[in-house]
Amino acid sequence: MQENYVDENFSRLVSDLQKLIQQPSVSAKNLGLEECSGLIVQMMRKSGIQAEILRIKKGVPPAIYGEIKSKQNPGKTLLFYNHYDVQPEEPLELWDDKPFSGKIKGNKIFGRGSADDKGELITRIKAVEAFLKTTGDVPCNIKFFIEGEEEIGSVHIENYLKKYQKKLSCDAVIWEFGYVDEKNRPIIGLGMKGLLYVELSKIESIRDAHSSLAVLIENPAWRLVEALKTLRDVDGRILIKDWYKEVDAFTKEDLKMIASEPFDENSFKKEYGIRKFVGNKKGIAIKKALVGEPTCNIAGFTSGYEGPGAKTVLPSKALVKIDFRLIPKMDPQKQLLRLKKHLEENGFDDIEVTMIHGEAAARTRLSDPFVKTVKKAADDSFGTSIISVSSAGTGPMFSFVKFLNSPCIAIGSTFVFSRIHSPNEFARIDLLRKTTKCMCKIIRNFASQ
Amino acid sequence: MQENYVDENFSRLVSDLQKLIQQPSVSAKNLGLEECSGLIVQMMRKSGIQAEILRIKKGVPPAIYGEIKSKQNPGKTLLFYNHYDVQPEEPLELWDDKPFSGKIKGNKIFGRGSADDKGELITRIKAVEAFLKTTGDVPCNIKFFIEGEEEIGSVHIENYLKKYQKKLSCDAVIWEFGYVDEKNRPIIGLGMKGLLYVELSKIESIRDAHSSLAVLIENPAWRLVEALKTLRDVDGRILIKDWYKEVDAFTKEDLKMIASEPFDENSFKKEYGIRKFVGNKKGIAIKKALVGEPTCNIAGFTSGYEGPGAKTVLPSKALVKIDFRLIPKMDPQKQLLRLKKHLEENGFDDIEVTMIHGEAAARTRLSDPFVKTVKKAADDSFGTSIISVSSAGTGPMFSFVKFLNSPCIAIGSTFVFSRIHSPNEFARIDLLRKTTKCMCKIIRNFASQ
Repeated sequence: MQENYVDENFSRLVSDLQKLIQQPSVSAKNLGLEECSGLIVQMMRKSGIQAEILRIKKGVPPAIYGEIKSKQNPGKTLLFYNHYDVQPEEPLELWDDKPFSGKIKGNKIFGRGSADDKGELITRIKAVEAFLKTTGDVPCNIKFFIEGEEEIGSVHIENYLKKYQKKLSCDAVIWEFGYVDEKNRPIIGLGMKGLLYVELSKIESIRDAHSSLAVLIENPAWRLVEALKTLRDVDGRILIKDWYKEVDAFTKEDLKMIASEPFDENSFKKEYGIRKFVGNKKGIAIKKALVGEPTCNIAGFTSGYEGPGAKTVLPSKALVKIDFRLIPKMDPQKQLLRLKKHLEENGFDDIEVTMIHGEAAARTRLSDPFVKTVKKAADDSFGTSIISVSSAGTGPMFSFVKFLNSPCIAIGSTFVFSRIHSPNEFARIDLLRKTTKCMCKIIRNFASQ
Repeated sequence: MQENYVDENFSRLVSDLQKLIQQPSVSAKNLGLEECSGLIVQMMRKSGIQAEILRIKKGVPPAIYGEIKSKQNPGKTLLFYNHYDVQPEEPLELWDDKPFSGKIKGNKIFGRGSADDKGELITRIKAVEAFLKTTGDVPCNIKFFIEGEEEIGSVHIENYLKKYQKKLSCDAVIWEFGYVDEKNRPIIGLGMKGLLYVELSKIESIRDAHSSLAVLIENPAWRLVEALKTLRDVDGRILIKDWYKEVDAFTKEDLKMIASEPFDENSFKKEYGIRKFVGNKKGIAIKKALVGEPTCNIAGFTSGYEGPGAKTVLPSKALVKIDFRLIPKMDPQKQLLRLKKHLEENGFDDIEVTMIHGEAAARTRLSDPFVKTVKKAADDSFGTSIISVSSAGTGPMFSFVKFLNSPCIAIGSTFVFSRIHSPNEFARIDLLRKTTKCMCKIIRNFASQ
């Protein structure tokens, strides 16, 4: 059985993951992307997968395509979507080890990308390898599509999906990640929120000035503060006109599923060291917010002197990075226009708005047969599982639905408190093993679905 | 004559200033302070001045004391107050040469501290040297007091002035700097604004989180934005209760002097690349603001991801540095309490307020005979001069008045657009020469005042 093969060869999975972590691949900095994609192609080929680099145009990070045609069942195709790029490693001083160490401590393997998404990727590759090495075949056609821009908003995903639409055609998609909660229950995610990521910048003068001149020269940080304050109320509700216009209320079915999702308020608070939730949310309000609340988050604010002590400076410029999470029917481009209009109408037309990226939200229907297929594999592997209407996070699921017209389901090995996007990100080794076996079961179940 | 000596030995003044610039002395970083003070003591001794290091306690940057007793006129003492520390050199990428280069290009010598305050200091030392080398005496007693914490708010100036009150006793003080405007007119400054420099910080969680969690975890940058917005209206007026309570209106005499001060709106706008002044100020309103308007300036704002591209992060903390400029009768400690009370009363008691430093404002009366003495020397040296009720900047003048009970007047060599506290700070070589000669005249005039 493939699960035995996974156990017997597990140490190789871990050392391969270490190699992947040790190869930095920060898309925001265009760092190590060629090297990392090359490394993955090699690794896939070693596992018996036909792998190749896909390109659309110069300057765009390459994607990786992998394929194994099934001899026994060539009429059905499962596609694994993953990404090899990672978030920036800053702030450096908060890492216990180097950000790309791949260091193992007990049940954890540390490093940027350990969980998001190199840990997930390795579980898919090794599950497919298990079939190939034990039977010389796979129960259904398998495809891999591994991009290098997920962490900067999958900027060219639609170009790839369009150009390689036929190559990537499939009947179902296993998404690039999936959470496992504190009670070791995998969360089967049927949807993703959307995202609009923008920079607001204000340049006031051609150079920093002595702050005694603040009586005469406008302060760009003050200008941004004033603009920001018009965007959101203290409870997080967005004040931009028509922001929520297209948003539907939850259906009864959604609400039932949301109510049944577990959420441990105390362990969450403990993990982040917080006392209360935004707007004093409790119970189902928390779960509804994770699934369906749009946000306006300040991801970065920078202006003036940021060192120790005092510098009496009047900064020449200020910059704020904002990520808006979107829910189904909110169109990033339309929301961007609403934001721009809002700033203009409130007298902030001197503030420059730059869109960094946008993605629409998407959800797979609960009634899709693929949901049952995945849930059975998850229950068999973990003893139990939870279905979630939508993740609080974002991915280009909308684009996959649009171009491949297949159900997408997120399931994986990422412990819910594994500090993805943060210092000391880690993957839990026990979950990597269980998830690899679960992937074997998904492939098997899907072949006979 | 001393002025001839200054001309004949001027190349040494310039090379000594280069040496001073090349020795970094950033008080905010506690960088190079011992080295720089040692270098200055050596230089003063070479000029014939008895110089020594003064200390008050361990960990506090040393000050420098210099003295020459007059044989011909031992009953009168002029004190030069200067500082050897400089502002932080950031942002590094905006400097054309290295920040501590001391590079000469045409009539300019570049580097952090070239104008503020090493250029000024060298003019005082060399003027005194001129008397000693030409006559073996000085026309009146001369004292120097050179501190190392001016750029971080002269934190221990009162400790020094108290401990060495007798040593530093004098009849008049020449302040550490003075501006020269675009028409080569020295500005004789009779006062300084005060300063309250604070950090507001908000720590929300124990680590950065994935920004999808913004539905649950409060964003500390948003929290600061909300608090900041209550401090100031869009025209810069401070909204903290009783902030202006003790402030007096300008006297008729003040207003007359303010009206007569020149201010070239166009060259100022051109220098900083701005189109209009805060609150659309024009004419006398500009000059009144420079002399007497309190400010609330954001000197730095830092939170979250500040690199290129996108990082979807929910920051764990946010920090803002604010400098409030104060005018006479505003007590920094009292204003700090008002700020704290304001934040509490507006529900922001979760924001931590740290005072970095505070100094009260001070002004010397126009009727003081020392004003006429200085003005005559300035007129003789530059052909004309301007009297200013108060600089827009801050210094510990209040403490000098309190402990030494002497009039303080600011006059010097700093070209008004010499980018002090900013990248590419420079001193104008022609002004260094003229000011050194002007200092000779001040010493001579003061001796016979």
